[in-house]
Amino acid sequence: MSTPPEGPDFSLADVAREGLIERPGAEPVPHDGTGRVDLSFTVHGRAEDGAELPPAERGVRVPPGVTVFDAASWNGIAIDSTCGGHGTCHKCKVRISPQADVPVTRHDRRTFTDAQLGDGWRLGCLVNATRDLAVEVPPLTTRPKAATVGIGRQVILRPALQKRYVELAEATLSDQRTDLVRLTDAIDDLELKADVHVLRRLSSVLRQSDFKVTAVIVDEDLIDVEPGDTTGARYAIAFDLGTTTVVGTLLDVGTGTPVAVTSMLNAQQPFGGDVITRISATMMDDQALGRLQQAAAATLAQLAAQVCREGGVDPQHVYEVAVAGNATMTALALGIDPEPLGVAPFVMSAAQPPSVLASEIGLSLHPRARAFFFPALGAYVGGDIVAGMLATGMDRDKRTRLFIDVGTNCEIVLSDGEKILSTAAPAGPAFEGGAIRCGMRAADGAIEVIKVDATASGDAPAVTLGVIGDVEPKGLCGSGLVDAVAELVRVGMLDATGRLVTEEAAKEVAPALADRLAMVGEERVFVLHRPTPDAEPAECVYLSQRDVRELQFAKAAISTGWSLLLEELGLEHRDVQQVLLAGSFGSYLSPASAVRIGLVPKLPVLRIVAAGNVAGEGAKMALLSVRERAGALALLEEVTYVELSDRPDFNEAFVDQLSFKA
Amino acid sequence: MSTPPEGPDFSLADVAREGLIERPGAEPVPHDGTGRVDLSFTVHGRAEDGAELPPAERGVRVPPGVTVFDAASWNGIAIDSTCGGHGTCHKCKVRISPQADVPVTRHDRRTFTDAQLGDGWRLGCLVNATRDLAVEVPPLTTRPKAATVGIGRQVILRPALQKRYVELAEATLSDQRTDLVRLTDAIDDLELKADVHVLRRLSSVLRQSDFKVTAVIVDEDLIDVEPGDTTGARYAIAFDLGTTTVVGTLLDVGTGTPVAVTSMLNAQQPFGGDVITRISATMMDDQALGRLQQAAAATLAQLAAQVCREGGVDPQHVYEVAVAGNATMTALALGIDPEPLGVAPFVMSAAQPPSVLASEIGLSLHPRARAFFFPALGAYVGGDIVAGMLATGMDRDKRTRLFIDVGTNCEIVLSDGEKILSTAAPAGPAFEGGAIRCGMRAADGAIEVIKVDATASGDAPAVTLGVIGDVEPKGLCGSGLVDAVAELVRVGMLDATGRLVTEEAAKEVAPALADRLAMVGEERVFVLHRPTPDAEPAECVYLSQRDVRELQFAKAAISTGWSLLLEELGLEHRDVQQVLLAGSFGSYLSPASAVRIGLVPKLPVLRIVAAGNVAGEGAKMALLSVRERAGALALLEEVTYVELSDRPDFNEAFVDQLSFKA
Repeated sequence: MSTPPEGPDFSLADVAREGLIERPGAEPVPHDGTGRVDLSFTVHGRAEDGAELPPAERGVRVPPGVTVFDAASWNGIAIDSTCGGHGTCHKCKVRISPQADVPVTRHDRRTFTDAQLGDGWRLGCLVNATRDLAVEVPPLTTRPKAATVGIGRQVILRPALQKRYVELAEATLSDQRTDLVRLTDAIDDLELKADVHVLRRLSSVLRQSDFKVTAVIVDEDLIDVEPGDTTGARYAIAFDLGTTTVVGTLLDVGTGTPVAVTSMLNAQQPFGGDVITRISATMMDDQALGRLQQAAAATLAQLAAQVCREGGVDPQHVYEVAVAGNATMTALALGIDPEPLGVAPFVMSAAQPPSVLASEIGLSLHPRARAFFFPALGAYVGGDIVAGMLATGMDRDKRTRLFIDVGTNCEIVLSDGEKILSTAAPAGPAFEGGAIRCGMRAADGAIEVIKVDATASGDAPAVTLGVIGDVEPKGLCGSGLVDAVAELVRVGMLDATGRLVTEEAAKEVAPALADRLAMVGEERVFVLHRPTPDAEPAECVYLSQRDVRELQFAKAAISTGWSLLLEELGLEHRDVQQVLLAGSFGSYLSPASAVRIGLVPKLPVLRIVAAGNVAGEGAKMALLSVRERAGALALLEEVTYVELSDRPDFNEAFVDQLSFKA
Repeated sequence: MSTPPEGPDFSLADVAREGLIERPGAEPVPHDGTGRVDLSFTVHGRAEDGAELPPAERGVRVPPGVTVFDAASWNGIAIDSTCGGHGTCHKCKVRISPQADVPVTRHDRRTFTDAQLGDGWRLGCLVNATRDLAVEVPPLTTRPKAATVGIGRQVILRPALQKRYVELAEATLSDQRTDLVRLTDAIDDLELKADVHVLRRLSSVLRQSDFKVTAVIVDEDLIDVEPGDTTGARYAIAFDLGTTTVVGTLLDVGTGTPVAVTSMLNAQQPFGGDVITRISATMMDDQALGRLQQAAAATLAQLAAQVCREGGVDPQHVYEVAVAGNATMTALALGIDPEPLGVAPFVMSAAQPPSVLASEIGLSLHPRARAFFFPALGAYVGGDIVAGMLATGMDRDKRTRLFIDVGTNCEIVLSDGEKILSTAAPAGPAFEGGAIRCGMRAADGAIEVIKVDATASGDAPAVTLGVIGDVEPKGLCGSGLVDAVAELVRVGMLDATGRLVTEEAAKEVAPALADRLAMVGEERVFVLHRPTPDAEPAECVYLSQRDVRELQFAKAAISTGWSLLLEELGLEHRDVQQVLLAGSFGSYLSPASAVRIGLVPKLPVLRIVAAGNVAGEGAKMALLSVRERAGALALLEEVTYVELSDRPDFNEAFVDQLSFKA
C-alpha cells in the first residue's frame, strides 16, 4: 500500500461550518493519564522522479492521549495536512492497526468509504493514541504551501531563506547596469542587500553561467549567487539547544518537510549538569567561557554534520539555522559572558541576540549561512520558552492555558487569551536525577512509569514498572520519580506531609507493599525493584525519604509559580482549559501523577497534554515562516515577566504548596 | 608670536550683506598661470592644557593663484575658519612675509588694525599665492562645530563616528532591563544596533567600570563600549586610493582637524602602472587578484600605521576609514573580480560597494572599525571622482563649472548649476611619463615647469626649467611635458599639426632655440637640458616628436570629452565660469599651458583653478559629515553618465581636437 484512498467528496463549506480551531471529532477515547503507548510508523516515500521508495520504519513512544498526527509531527515524520491537525482538511490519511477500538469520527466518514474505514484508514489528527498502534503513512502528495509544526500549528510557508532562479540579459554598451542592479532588477519584490562576499563572486558566476543563476536570499540579504538553477536545494537546521540534550532537525524549507532529526548530549556536560554550575565555571576560570563556547559549537557542528549525512544533503546547501535555547545556553553559544545571568539581579546582555553567521557558532554549512537565536523574556525565561510559546500558540489561542516546562529551572506561562504572564521557578535537580539516590537520566534502564496495587495478592504484582528499553531496571528517571511518589501518596504509603508511613501503618493501608519498606544507612526507603530475591536494600532501585523531599520542594516551587500567576489574573484551577507539559522531561510525565502530586492544577487528566519538544518545534516554525518569527519577537512585548523572588507572598505560598493534599 | 591679533569689530550683518558664497575680497593679483610658488608654513599649536607647543615647519609647493588658506587646507594644515574660506568669518588670520605685494582687502581692514596689517597679518583665504611666501599660522582657537575641507567647503561636523559618555544606574531586582537596553535607553536619540562582538564584552565592561562607559557608535551601529570617558579619542582615516599614489589623512572627527598626512606609492605598481594592466594581470593569473588585494591592503596598512605614529594616536582609537578610489582600485581593495571593468561593455559589480570592516581591507585599527568606500558612477568615473565632486561642490554651486581629473584615464564632469554630466576619456599614458621618451614621475629631478624665450641672446637663457627638488634635471613629468609643448607651440617651434618645424624655419621663428633641434635615432627631438656642453642628444633630457604626438592624442581625447559635454548642454567655451584641474597630476598643470595646448577651453587663466587632491578632501568630508556622505550617494542619481565610445560623432570631434589651434 502506498496511495491514500480517495474518499467521499469534501467541500470548503464543511470547513467553514465547523471552524478551523476547535477539533470537531468525536470525543476522544478517555484514558487514565498514566503509562506510555508505542507507535510503530511505516512511512512510505517517493523519489524526485515519482518512484516509490522502500518504506522506513520508526518507533515512537508517547504518553497516552497524544494524537497520531502530533506524535508523528514531533518526531519528524511528515504527514500531509493543510489545516494543521484540526480535523478540517481531511488530508492526514493514515492506516491504523489494530483499529478495533479506534473510533470512527464523522470526519472519517466523510473522508473514507466504509471499506476503507474497515481497512483501518483514519484521519491521523483525530486518532488519540490510547494503546500501542501500528501506523502506515502514505507518501506526501504535491509540494505543500504550508506545513504542520508545533502543537497543531499550520504554518504557511514563507521562509526567510528563499532561492530565485533568474535568466538575465547580458550587458551591452547601451545597458551598462551594474551586475548587482541587473540581478536585483529581476527580483524587484525584494530590497536586496549584497555583502562584499557575494560581490566578490558575482561577476564571474554571472559570466560563467551565461547569466542564468540562482540568488540565495535570507531575509533581504543576498548571501550567494549560484550558477544555474539550484532552487530545489534549500535547507535549514532547527536546533533545540538544551542544557542536557541538543536536538537538530534538518528541514527542507521549500516543502516544510523534516529531512532528518537527531539528538545528542550537550558537550558542555563536563562543566556541570545545570546552567548555574556552568555559569560558575566561567566565574572561576577565565578560560571556561571559551571552552564552553567551543563545546556548544562542537555539539551543534556534530549534529549538523549528522543530519546532513542522514538526509543526504550537502552542508553547503544549508543556508540558515535557528537556535532555541535558554538564556545561558544562548549566551554561551555566542561567547557572551553569562555571569550577570547567574547572580542577582539576573540581567541579560540583550533580550534579542544579534543575527550572526552560522560559522560564528562553529557550523560548517554554507559560509554565509545565517544563525537566528530566539529572544528571551528574562534571564530564566529564555529563547527555548519563547520558541515553545510560538509552537503552542500561547499568543493566539483564546483559551485559558498553562504552559509548564519542567526541569531544574521550571518556566511557567499562563494565558487567559488576553494577557500572557510568565515566570521562572527554581525547581532544583530532582527531575534530572542528579539529586535522587537512584536517579538517572531518561535512558535505557530507567524506570519511567510505575503503577502500584496496594492490595495485590498471589501472582498479581504489587508494583508494575515501565522501563525504558524494556531492560533490567537500573534507576529512576524524573517521570518515574513523579509516578512513584504519586502512587505512594494515592495508596497512603506517603502521608500528606510527604513522610513514608510506619511499617505498622503500611501493613494496614497497603499490605502488599509493606515489605518494601527498608533502611539504607540511616534513611528510610521504599524498594521499587530487587535485582535478586535476597539483594540488600542498598543494591536495589528504591525511592528514599530524601528523594521525596527533593520532589516536594520542586513541585512546591512549580505550583507556587503557577498559583501566583493564576492569582495575578484572578483565575481558579478549574478555569484552566489546557495544561501543556513541555520539554524533554515534562512531555513524558504521567498526567495523572502530575495531578496527583499537585505539580499541575487539579484538573481532569484529559486537559493535561504532553506538548513534546516545543522549543525545537518553535525553531522549525521560525525557519519556515518569517511571520511566525516576527511573532516570536512580538512576544517580547506581549508577555509580562513576573519576578517571583521579589514577591513578599512567595514564601507563604511555597510552604502552602509543600504538602501532598488530596 | 602665537596669538592672532584682535582686530576691528566684525558683525554678522556684514556677512549677511556680502553673502556667503562669493569671495568678496579685492581682485586678486593677476598671475600669468605659469610656474610654481613655495609656501613655508610655521604652524603654532597648543597642548591639551593650553601650553604652547614648539612650532612646526612645513613647506608646500602649489601652482600660482591658489589661496594660502586652500594651500594649507589641502596639505593638512589647520587654520581657524567657520565660513569655509569665503572671506566672511574673518577667522583665518595668518601672518605673511614678505607682505609688500600682498594686497589689503576691505575684509582685512575690518579685521586688523593698521599696525597689524603693517606687520603682515591677513585673512588667509583672501591671499592668492602669486610668489614664494612665509606664512605663520596661530594656534587654533576653540573647538569648532565645523571644519573646512575640499574647495572652500564648510562642513558642519556631524561625523558618522560618535562617542557618548554615559553613567548608568546599576540593575536591581525591580529594574532588570538588559545591559543593552540600559545603555540604549541612555542614548535615546539613536536607534542603536549592537553586534555580537559588543555583546560579548558589554556586561563585563559595564561592571568593571561601575556602569560609567563610553559608547562608540558608527552610524547607528554600536561598535564598542569602552570603560570610562574616552570621548576625546575619536579618529578616522581618509584614504585617496590612487592607481599611482595613495594618500592617508588621520582626522580628529571631533574637531575636523587633520592630525597627520602621508602618502606613498601604491604597492600594486609591480602589476602595471595603470588600471588596465592590473585588470589584465587578474585575467591571466588566478593568483593575481589575491595578490593585488594584498598589495592594496599592505599600502593602506602602512599609511595607517604611519599617520597614527606621526599623530601620536593609538590605532585602536581609529574607528572608521573612508576610501576614495577609482572603480578598479576599489574592486581590487575589496577583492572583487575587476575583469568586467576592463572589457566592453565595462560593467561594475555594484555602484555602491557594501560597508565592510576595516580589518577586511587589511587595516589593524579598532577591530570593529568600519570602512566606507565611495560609490562610482561608472566603470571609468569612479569613487575618486564622486569624492572630488563632493569636495568641489559640483552639485551645489550654481555656476557653470568644468571638472577635469587629468590622468591615464581622464574623468570629466560638467555642471551648468542644474544638470550634471560626466564622462571618461582614455587619455593614455602621456601624463604618467611612461610613454614619453624622457618621461618620469613627478619626483625629484623631474622638470615640471618650462619657460622659453625664443629671442634670448647673450647671458639670457633661452629655456628656463623648474625642477622638482631643485636638482639636476633627470626627466620630464606630465606638467613639464604640457609646458614644453605649450611653449614650443607659442613660439612657433611646433606647428598647428604638432610637427617640429624644420631647422630653417626654426632659425627664422626662434633663433635662440634652433640649435636645440637634433636627432635621436630616426626621430627629431628638441633638447631641453644638456648635462654637459658636448653631450650627445641621446644623453640629454629632450622632447621627441613622438612625445608630442602622445600628448596630442591625450589632449584630443580630453578636449573631445568636454567639448561633447558642452554640446550636450548647449554651452560655449566662454560660458564656463570655472575649470577645476584635479588629481595629483591635474593640480600641478600650468593653467596657461593647459589653455595654450587646448587641454581646457580657451578661457582667461584666472578661471583655471588647481583643485588639489579633491578625492582625499571628499573622503575627509564623508568622515566629518553624514550629510555630505549622503550627498555623495545622492550624486549617483543626480549625475548623468555619457558613454563616449557609443557616440557616432566621437571620431570626428576627436580628429578636430588633434590640432594645436591658436
